[in-house]
Amino acid sequence: MIIVVKQSHDQKQLDNLIKWVKSQGLEVDLSVGSHSTILGLIGDTSKVDIDLINALDIVESVKRIQEPFKCANRKFHPDDTIVKVGDAVFGGGNFTFIAGPCSVESEQQIIGIAQAVKEAGAKVLRGGAFKPRTSPYSFQGLRGTGIELLVKAKKETGLPIVTEVMSVSQLSLFDDVDIIQIGARNMQNFELLKEVGKVGKPVLLKRGLASTIEEWLMSAEYIMSEGCKDIILCERGIRTYETYTRNTLDLSAIPVLRELTHLPVVVDPSHASGIARLVPPLSMAAAGVGADGLMIEVHNDPKHALCDGAQSITPEQFADITKKVNTILPLVDKKPIL
Amino acid sequence: MIIVVKQSHDQKQLDNLIKWVKSQGLEVDLSVGSHSTILGLIGDTSKVDIDLINALDIVESVKRIQEPFKCANRKFHPDDTIVKVGDAVFGGGNFTFIAGPCSVESEQQIIGIAQAVKEAGAKVLRGGAFKPRTSPYSFQGLRGTGIELLVKAKKETGLPIVTEVMSVSQLSLFDDVDIIQIGARNMQNFELLKEVGKVGKPVLLKRGLASTIEEWLMSAEYIMSEGCKDIILCERGIRTYETYTRNTLDLSAIPVLRELTHLPVVVDPSHASGIARLVPPLSMAAAGVGADGLMIEVHNDPKHALCDGAQSITPEQFADITKKVNTILPLVDKKPIL
Amino acid sequence: MIIVVKQSHDQKQLDNLIKWVKSQGLEVDLSVGSHSTILGLIGDTSKVDIDLINALDIVESVKRIQEPFKCANRKFHPDDTIVKVGDAVFGGGNFTFIAGPCSVESEQQIIGIAQAVKEAGAKVLRGGAFKPRTSPYSFQGLRGTGIELLVKAKKETGLPIVTEVMSVSQLSLFDDVDIIQIGARNMQNFELLKEVGKVGKPVLLKRGLASTIEEWLMSAEYIMSEGCKDIILCERGIRTYETYTRNTLDLSAIPVLRELTHLPVVVDPSHASGIARLVPPLSMAAAGVGADGLMIEVHNDPKHALCDGAQSITPEQFADITKKVNTILPLVDKKPIL
Amino acid sequence: MIIVVKQSHDQKQLDNLIKWVKSQGLEVDLSVGSHSTILGLIGDTSKVDIDLINALDIVESVKRIQEPFKCANRKFHPDDTIVKVGDAVFGGGNFTFIAGPCSVESEQQIIGIAQAVKEAGAKVLRGGAFKPRTSPYSFQGLRGTGIELLVKAKKETGLPIVTEVMSVSQLSLFDDVDIIQIGARNMQNFELLKEVGKVGKPVLLKRGLASTIEEWLMSAEYIMSEGCKDIILCERGIRTYETYTRNTLDLSAIPVLRELTHLPVVVDPSHASGIARLVPPLSMAAAGVGADGLMIEVHNDPKHALCDGAQSITPEQFADITKKVNTILPLVDKKPIL
Repeated sequence: MIIVVKQSHDQKQLDNLIKWVKSQGLEVDLSVGSHSTILGLIGDTSKVDIDLINALDIVESVKRIQEPFKCANRKFHPDDTIVKVGDAVFGGGNFTFIAGPCSVESEQQIIGIAQAVKEAGAKVLRGGAFKPRTSPYSFQGLRGTGIELLVKAKKETGLPIVTEVMSVSQLSLFDDVDIIQIGARNMQNFELLKEVGKVGKPVLLKRGLASTIEEWLMSAEYIMSEGCKDIILCERGIRTYETYTRNTLDLSAIPVLRELTHLPVVVDPSHASGIARLVPPLSMAAAGVGADGLMIEVHNDPKHALCDGAQSITPEQFADITKKVNTILPLVDKKPIL
Repeated sequence: MIIVVKQSHDQKQLDNLIKWVKSQGLEVDLSVGSHSTILGLIGDTSKVDIDLINALDIVESVKRIQEPFKCANRKFHPDDTIVKVGDAVFGGGNFTFIAGPCSVESEQQIIGIAQAVKEAGAKVLRGGAFKPRTSPYSFQGLRGTGIELLVKAKKETGLPIVTEVMSVSQLSLFDDVDIIQIGARNMQNFELLKEVGKVGKPVLLKRGLASTIEEWLMSAEYIMSEGCKDIILCERGIRTYETYTRNTLDLSAIPVLRELTHLPVVVDPSHASGIARLVPPLSMAAAGVGADGLMIEVHNDPKHALCDGAQSITPEQFADITKKVNTILPLVDKKPIL
Repeated sequence: MIIVVKQSHDQKQLDNLIKWVKSQGLEVDLSVGSHSTILGLIGDTSKVDIDLINALDIVESVKRIQEPFKCANRKFHPDDTIVKVGDAVFGGGNFTFIAGPCSVESEQQIIGIAQAVKEAGAKVLRGGAFKPRTSPYSFQGLRGTGIELLVKAKKETGLPIVTEVMSVSQLSLFDDVDIIQIGARNMQNFELLKEVGKVGKPVLLKRGLASTIEEWLMSAEYIMSEGCKDIILCERGIRTYETYTRNTLDLSAIPVLRELTHLPVVVDPSHASGIARLVPPLSMAAAGVGADGLMIEVHNDPKHALCDGAQSITPEQFADITKKVNTILPLVDKKPIL
Repeated sequence: MIIVVKQSHDQKQLDNLIKWVKSQGLEVDLSVGSHSTILGLIGDTSKVDIDLINALDIVESVKRIQEPFKCANRKFHPDDTIVKVGDAVFGGGNFTFIAGPCSVESEQQIIGIAQAVKEAGAKVLRGGAFKPRTSPYSFQGLRGTGIELLVKAKKETGLPIVTEVMSVSQLSLFDDVDIIQIGARNMQNFELLKEVGKVGKPVLLKRGLASTIEEWLMSAEYIMSEGCKDIILCERGIRTYETYTRNTLDLSAIPVLRELTHLPVVVDPSHASGIARLVPPLSMAAAGVGADGLMIEVHNDPKHALCDGAQSITPEQFADITKKVNTILPLVDKKPIL
């Protein structure tokens, strides 16, 4: 960390600052130039609050040199983390499809889709039981019942399941859930992150609606600091000024994350765009850019299902995507999935 | 709500759509033009899921005409909501200062600040007990003890207190807290919103880091739909590409909210900018634009307190702000506070 | 176009509005509901100023139904526009590589790179002569001399050339340039767009730094309305809050543009990310998502060239990219290039 | 400027980098730590290309310590620049109103408005002759004739005039224009900036649609580096994800600019919001935050003028604003204007 001190600084304040830095267990490299005085902080600065120093009267600016995340940092863990759940493998040159409906609606629906997506190559079943909705008047999901139906589909097909948790009190219902999902709106619900980190199950952590890559990794750090090692990151688009798509899918984040972290990253093209017909091209792009998997909304009968799943693609379209993506994988050093 | 149907639509799909709309208790006004077919939905469309319709094959676009919020809507509640807590009054031509430290640190600190800000004109004491921090390695607040110290300061000074809740399980500690704060990162923690709405206390709802005005009002709607009527909105800056300030304070939101909602709105210039010396000019701007109050971080001794409160202003600077703001208030039809 | 009139409107003002709309050669479909009055404007609304109507006292909101662009609109021109320049073909199932250095530096440099990228599969040579730089103190390009060197490289290799124009007065130097580039910062330099549209050469139009897809197509419309039909759009990243990459490459824009317009679209991964090692994965993603080509910065000796080209990739890395991209093309219904 | 070198750097590359830095006339302070090697560049780094260094293989990151602008920098010019045009004074504790219609329409219109705004306290008349419009089909302004009409209004009222130039070729028509305006879309039209800087007249430089404060000052630097000293900056809102207002007015930029530069800054609330009824509260906010003036669209008869000026306020409303703003000025250490 580098602290640039104002030209017009008071010497006593500078001495105080240096004293305080040393009290944090860090060493200081002082460099006095004609235009600026610079403090280089040497040691583990991950616990130093950059905003706080920035706010000091004598400070012109503060720049972090080291990333503030440690457990999630590839520098301290060079090998890919490989997360295995049932037949699904995330990371280490593998590619995995997660598929299923936006919301769980009925036993017939979820089992039907589970069978269809399994046949098409999916290795994990997704489905919303607790639904975060912008409006209190919108359908909030089948909640506990939704999880029970997912578990039935798991028994029927053997597919492990992933579903979103929205509060600590719901966690007791997640015993038979294989991967716990943290949604975009809860990415910085720190109390939830800590509790989920204690459960001992793999966690799928979606990027926040307008989160930076660093904030996202810091949220992974929250979970990992509680002992959880198996995190799957999920890029789902970020908020920008462009309104043709619901969010702007940030595919550059995938190779950036590959450098910064050892954790696997999957892409959710369904939520990113909000438009079913963009899912196939964005899936090809995600595979091309080097993602470790895709999470896709699939509905068994979107044409007739008016009030749900309409933005999902059909199992046939999904099978088409898995086939095409499969042919790209060897070109990007990934094992084929079919 | 207006649904624009694609020129190339299938008649059967259109019939299905109309049937479904009617099944939601709405009437349909069909307008067939040479270039486009338009459905006008008549009735209460606040429960209709716009994303879902947008995703239908035959739909070109959907436009909401009515705002999706009702309890918070000025159309259905033309008079200002006035929130009274102790001597503090929000809304209805009143202006109120909330002040206090970023974090509660000690009894001496919080009582000292409480006395100082009270003397300077503050009517509510703020102070962080549970602190949402981007890093798990940063100080997380004094938590329960922090609330106890706030309550002591309240007894000592008579000032009502506001502090942030981060999870449902913490709510049991909020019995003596006067206003419950929902922080920016939890603005769409819907489970928390619902529980806080049941408590029966006024709620200060901060705008999310990158939330639209509509999403913000929908979060207020979540709280209000559980019976709570006393919501104070708090603008604290939004995320943009500009990095000189931590966030971009969106002061245009104040007169926009004045039209859309009857709820009072205060401005937090401390978190918006992250720079203490911007707090005085932004406070003047907030008063000028018509805000119902200001929430300002004040620390008793920022020069010596190195590890906290550095970005806060001193009680003397705060007293200066209240004096100056006071002179603006009559010009914007607000009652003077001093 | 749909105009929603306020409930509390004055009848005379509404009559005036309807009269004015009709004076613009449009018909009006009036729909009076209990909550809102809606005017549907029927006819060619592309010349109607939406901001102007939006600003009227009696108007609650205005929604455009038809896209405001016509020449660029796929609805009125369903077949792909195919732009042919030398051996390069853009659109209609073809895929084309444009490659070359950021700045033209010397005859040896530009001819060397031209030969190398031609061998690797590039069909167009790029190179900056006029350089838009944020700082007046940065190198502004070789300007006229740069264009002469590009023309020499063209004679030597047969590759057509594309280079950026920054003002109307420079156009006289573009006689031997094959494709005129409009840079991101000039995307809304409307006077330049109009003049370039009169030249009669193909134009490569980069997306503005923070432009919407619609604004981009409207800028294409400016050029086309002067008679130019051969526009190649170029996605180069948009400005967001994320700072790990210089810009956020918006790959979703490619399939969106495919629907909205018949114009070909290429992707520039070099400027989008600003990081050379992200160029290979982003190139694969661009091919996967269905782009019509790639524009890549290539430098002959980035390791030793300290003051330029450092962010470029080498001809060897470029050859690697063309080979890999070539294998993806058949999977996305594009003709292989090698 | 500080360059952080990768831990795994090649010594030869580092030597090359140091050699190159020294060849630029800079000194290097090398600091080798156990985790990172840091180069401090000492001297005038304003001409060093940060992107270029950032792109080097051995570089982890580069941080600029000094601002890259010099002529516009308050560090090298501590006193306010005061721009005087007719009776108008910008900077140095003065406050000035610029007012007039969006577009010049007729002699009667522009003279009528000029007289009305002069009476209400405006010291400069604004009016668009060349109009930058997103669509080629929208009205492009009266152009040369518009300027002639502005000059007539100037003769009639004595008010100096400001109007926008969109290309170098139009500059010959600006002989009788007092302040040349650069619009938001041309803020990085560098060729235009350079030519306008040579004219010898004051320049009003609008902030780009999505420009950072630093980019904005660099554009001022372009103009100043050609000899022009009298620049008036104009904040007009930035592009964000929020759509209730056309742009998000960034009032925090005013006190930030006060620190960074000696140039005066005015605020344009009309273009920022696009909503006439937001102009009065935003004007009060701009005065409160310390702006040096306001630029406001005023139309003589917005109620009847359907096709233009509708988003403007009336002369009566403008007079109301000047009166109210006048009462705030002494509170923010500005001289009253009336």
